[in-house]
Amino acid sequence: MFNKVLIIGCGLIGSSILRAIISKKLSKKIFISEKSKSNISKIKKIKSNYTFIKNINSEISDCDLVIICTPMNQYKNIIQKLNQRLKKGSLITDVSSTKQNVIKLKNKILNKKLIWISSHPIAGSEVSGPEYGDKNLFLNKWSVIIREKKQNSKKINLLKKFWKKIGSKVILMDSVNHDKIFSITSHLPHLIAYNLIKTAQDSQKIQKKNLIKYSAGGLRDFSRIAASNEIMWRDIFFNNDNIIKAINLFNKNLNSFKKLIQNKNNKKLLLRLSNSKKVRKQILQLKQDIAKPDFGR
Amino acid sequence: MFNKVLIIGCGLIGSSILRAIISKKLSKKIFISEKSKSNISKIKKIKSNYTFIKNINSEISDCDLVIICTPMNQYKNIIQKLNQRLKKGSLITDVSSTKQNVIKLKNKILNKKLIWISSHPIAGSEVSGPEYGDKNLFLNKWSVIIREKKQNSKKINLLKKFWKKIGSKVILMDSVNHDKIFSITSHLPHLIAYNLIKTAQDSQKIQKKNLIKYSAGGLRDFSRIAASNEIMWRDIFFNNDNIIKAINLFNKNLNSFKKLIQNKNNKKLLLRLSNSKKVRKQILQLKQDIAKPDFGR
Repeated sequence: MFNKVLIIGCGLIGSSILRAIISKKLSKKIFISEKSKSNISKIKKIKSNYTFIKNINSEISDCDLVIICTPMNQYKNIIQKLNQRLKKGSLITDVSSTKQNVIKLKNKILNKKLIWISSHPIAGSEVSGPEYGDKNLFLNKWSVIIREKKQNSKKINLLKKFWKKIGSKVILMDSVNHDKIFSITSHLPHLIAYNLIKTAQDSQKIQKKNLIKYSAGGLRDFSRIAASNEIMWRDIFFNNDNIIKAINLFNKNLNSFKKLIQNKNNKKLLLRLSNSKKVRKQILQLKQDIAKPDFGR
Repeated sequence: MFNKVLIIGCGLIGSSILRAIISKKLSKKIFISEKSKSNISKIKKIKSNYTFIKNINSEISDCDLVIICTPMNQYKNIIQKLNQRLKKGSLITDVSSTKQNVIKLKNKILNKKLIWISSHPIAGSEVSGPEYGDKNLFLNKWSVIIREKKQNSKKINLLKKFWKKIGSKVILMDSVNHDKIFSITSHLPHLIAYNLIKTAQDSQKIQKKNLIKYSAGGLRDFSRIAASNEIMWRDIFFNNDNIIKAINLFNKNLNSFKKLIQNKNNKKLLLRLSNSKKVRKQILQLKQDIAKPDFGR
């Protein structure tokens, strides 16, 4: 499929892409740019041919695909280097979780000779680092490709083909819709999980009791989500403006929930609780989760 | 261990207790009181000797242990029947998730000849009904026994022994502490999950988009928790007064979280996000969950 691919940033997502490319034999040569020495030694356990590079040099100026998998706050520096080194018409993508900010940045500083089509594979975990990477991480998961005006349709198709080859279902949407949708399905749930764990920590101090000991009752699942990478999630919360709207809507619902309890409004409370089952049903129908009940792992 | 045990209400928890008693041969005779015809036909698939009863009659007036596993709003009726039929000194327990209300009710209306020691096995799932029951549901899970003044220590020991025999770790605490602790570790997380799903449903209407389709990004796990039994959770929210305090603390934290985002307070936000990992670490150390990462089931 490709002659040369460059992966910049090789943590959980980058190394999963690396493993998938190796497994599917999608590129003759693979280059990896990774700053962390500890990550490099972990990646080296993956047996295959790939080359670590310190700088983007002439050898890789003609890359078919550059995939940026670093935290978003490194994008600016990376773009400046790519501007200098990459050949005209080179295809760049990234895997960030918020898109309006990325599109804005690249429109501002990316050299017009280069083609950046942004991606967001909806895959991840509470763990980070290349040791947890998995060639099947993207299998049957959505990969969003960000649609913009006047895009190179040949390159869009190439990128689509790439994500499909490594197992994803592909959907195109614009960055505004992307950020709206994922503010609700991903960003708000993570923020709420972080906030719940903070509340449990505070309660532990107030009650002077080891609450965590009894976490089997529900806290457990939230603690997993709230153990996700803090750099990644800081970047997401700072870069998706929709999160404030999402918090406000959540807050409004929480206050009305509280009132239903205080007023012992039996009928409305039951309705609210049973309505949630519809969402679960949809999620199971869409095969986003399996129906097997969870009794605590 | 027992000659006669009576299980009143045989859904997920009741039928799990039934299966455990059968499996461990803890009682010569087992009686089941269950109103739902559909549940009865599901229970009948469990091959063993047990007897369905319609009314508490003379045959079971000398039960060694009565275990109430119905929704809490049926307790009053049940107590009135037990008052009439059970012999002096009979031991009753229940498995409800809130305790101050149960203790108050039984202190008010239970005949003084009967001994009620309340229990709360910390086990369950998003599914309900006897078809999901499991003899190992209580294995390595906490069972709380509610301590009160002037309790029959012989009966406490018998109840302790019972929960241990079916696999639980047992802890004694008073009802006030019980309700405080579980308002945070169990009741608030469920309320928050219900509220998050409601917020996603509202957003779906506002955005006129099928958000649920992309739920793999985090909503999925909350949807499972929010699919729990609405009758049980209505009763819990109505009966644990601590839930309002818990909501208020959560709300306070959510507002400060929002401010950190709005003010782009990098340092404090990173601290807050990374602090959650401590709770996860504790939970794994306590073996409340396994360390195996979750990449979506």
